[in-house]
Amino acid sequence: MTTKPIKRICVAGAGTIGSLFAGHLESVAVSTVLVRRQEHADQLNKMGLRVSGKTNRQAKVLASTSPADLGDVDLVIIATKASAVAETARTMTGHFPNALVMTVQNGLGCEDIVAKHGDWPIISAVTFMSGNRHSDVHVEYELDTATWMGPWAKGRATYEQVQQVAALVTASGLKAQAFPDLLPAQWSKLIFNATVNSVAAITDLPHVRAFAERGALTDLGHLVHAMMDEGKCVAAALGIKLFEDPWEMNVEATSHGQTGNEDYAHAPSMLEDVRAHRPTEIDWITGSIVRAAREAKVPVPISETLYRLVKAREASWKINKQIIERVTK
Amino acid sequence: MTTKPIKRICVAGAGTIGSLFAGHLESVAVSTVLVRRQEHADQLNKMGLRVSGKTNRQAKVLASTSPADLGDVDLVIIATKASAVAETARTMTGHFPNALVMTVQNGLGCEDIVAKHGDWPIISAVTFMSGNRHSDVHVEYELDTATWMGPWAKGRATYEQVQQVAALVTASGLKAQAFPDLLPAQWSKLIFNATVNSVAAITDLPHVRAFAERGALTDLGHLVHAMMDEGKCVAAALGIKLFEDPWEMNVEATSHGQTGNEDYAHAPSMLEDVRAHRPTEIDWITGSIVRAAREAKVPVPISETLYRLVKAREASWKINKQIIERVTK
Repeated sequence: MTTKPIKRICVAGAGTIGSLFAGHLESVAVSTVLVRRQEHADQLNKMGLRVSGKTNRQAKVLASTSPADLGDVDLVIIATKASAVAETARTMTGHFPNALVMTVQNGLGCEDIVAKHGDWPIISAVTFMSGNRHSDVHVEYELDTATWMGPWAKGRATYEQVQQVAALVTASGLKAQAFPDLLPAQWSKLIFNATVNSVAAITDLPHVRAFAERGALTDLGHLVHAMMDEGKCVAAALGIKLFEDPWEMNVEATSHGQTGNEDYAHAPSMLEDVRAHRPTEIDWITGSIVRAAREAKVPVPISETLYRLVKAREASWKINKQIIERVTK
Repeated sequence: MTTKPIKRICVAGAGTIGSLFAGHLESVAVSTVLVRRQEHADQLNKMGLRVSGKTNRQAKVLASTSPADLGDVDLVIIATKASAVAETARTMTGHFPNALVMTVQNGLGCEDIVAKHGDWPIISAVTFMSGNRHSDVHVEYELDTATWMGPWAKGRATYEQVQQVAALVTASGLKAQAFPDLLPAQWSKLIFNATVNSVAAITDLPHVRAFAERGALTDLGHLVHAMMDEGKCVAAALGIKLFEDPWEMNVEATSHGQTGNEDYAHAPSMLEDVRAHRPTEIDWITGSIVRAAREAKVPVPISETLYRLVKAREASWKINKQIIERVTK
């Protein structure tokens, strides 16, 4: 089977990850960007997209709030938050009939949502790259780690198509790796994220060394290790052999190289969401493991606890606001 | 055995609970107050202590930072936070030779600390009353629930002495109940507190209805129920038959009467501590259950998780401050 060349792409969602994709892919394909705010589209059309940090780019992109303005494309990368995928996929309905669609959300389940809105071949992806979004038209490329991708197990994308996308992403200056079966990699990342994101969100700690410390009884590493063990049990029950050990990923990520300097310790997105009182992706991340565990009848008391704590923390913003408003009235 | 009359008392620590004791007991005994700050003592000596809310009092007290200034007393009520008991007991060394000493901290273990500093008969107590401290000399009496007291199991206070103190507290206008064995009541409150305080501290929620809701998978009541169950297993392993069911206490406390209005839902002290970035009493409360569970070999994964999360939250204040200071330098 031959694949057709990818000459024109669309990145849906220009947050940090979407901006990094669009800002780099412009060097190898005509790049369009689907955004929600008209002002954001106007800015991108006028200023282009700047990438600083690990790379330096000034990308020319065509942006719009409507797919009809962007023409047909060969590849759509949906790079919104998981909570925005349903709306994005709805907007795409009837458009981009010849495109491959790649999802790069945290957690599980976004492919199913996309598939409800069109018959696109779907590529599953998880990304480890990170950045710092300075404005609507400027993103800083921080961690230049890879995006992993594979054919969605329930769809019709082929491994050859995945390899083609991985080659394109690599040619654009980002890192990518294609997998015939993404599940082992996806679950490694899912277990890592489900733990690190929720613990960071609840403790207000970026991903510092404490996440790997297991000396004293109260050390946080015990909790991280035990919660990751729960995730590993769920993966094992589903017959998934992990690609990387999440605990080793955690130890590596918190070692901060030879200096041990944690001034630039990564603040996981869920921590940023909680700090900004934005809804988190907990339902897609930790929630995915908890639901899979219940189906597989694997006990995951710590994962359930963190899931409920983050949900309650989200609920607190509204409850406390109402209490303050009524009491001060 | 006869008990000698209680004519003169000393309350050590004039936070919310200490102020409520001193403000009421002044009506039935000469009341002195031991505080840490000279300015606080000066204010109390000049202005007295005002109680508003459920009762209205204007109490005349003798306050000092040194026990030597307060004369001998028949009863000392140590009403500081658990973390300040060691310092308070050290200050009391060699003083109050004829006093009964009653501890009213959250959690377990304060009696042992007091016993290291003097041969006083020790009464264990737990209190359910609450208030709102408006200033050094004004406290609002909120929840007029009882203080439970009993002879400390390892000490020489008698049940008669406890009954005498309970009668005195009751005569002063507060509520009190004497127990021959406080452990069943103490553990009911300990399990309640270990759960409600730590969950409130971590979610930023006051003790609202959500703590008792168990409909959806993510409802907080599941977590509260499961964590209380762990505590009940530990109590059972220690041979302690609980006086009240902590879960029923939780359901009752969050029902907010017939109106269901939760505007004045109680903010547990640990939540107030976390909001103010003050060290919490987690080591004495949830920590007591976790340590007892380890000795009794009872698995308490959820209690350990909350213990570690609160400790990590406390650590975050310093870690984040250092990161900000270094990064902005």
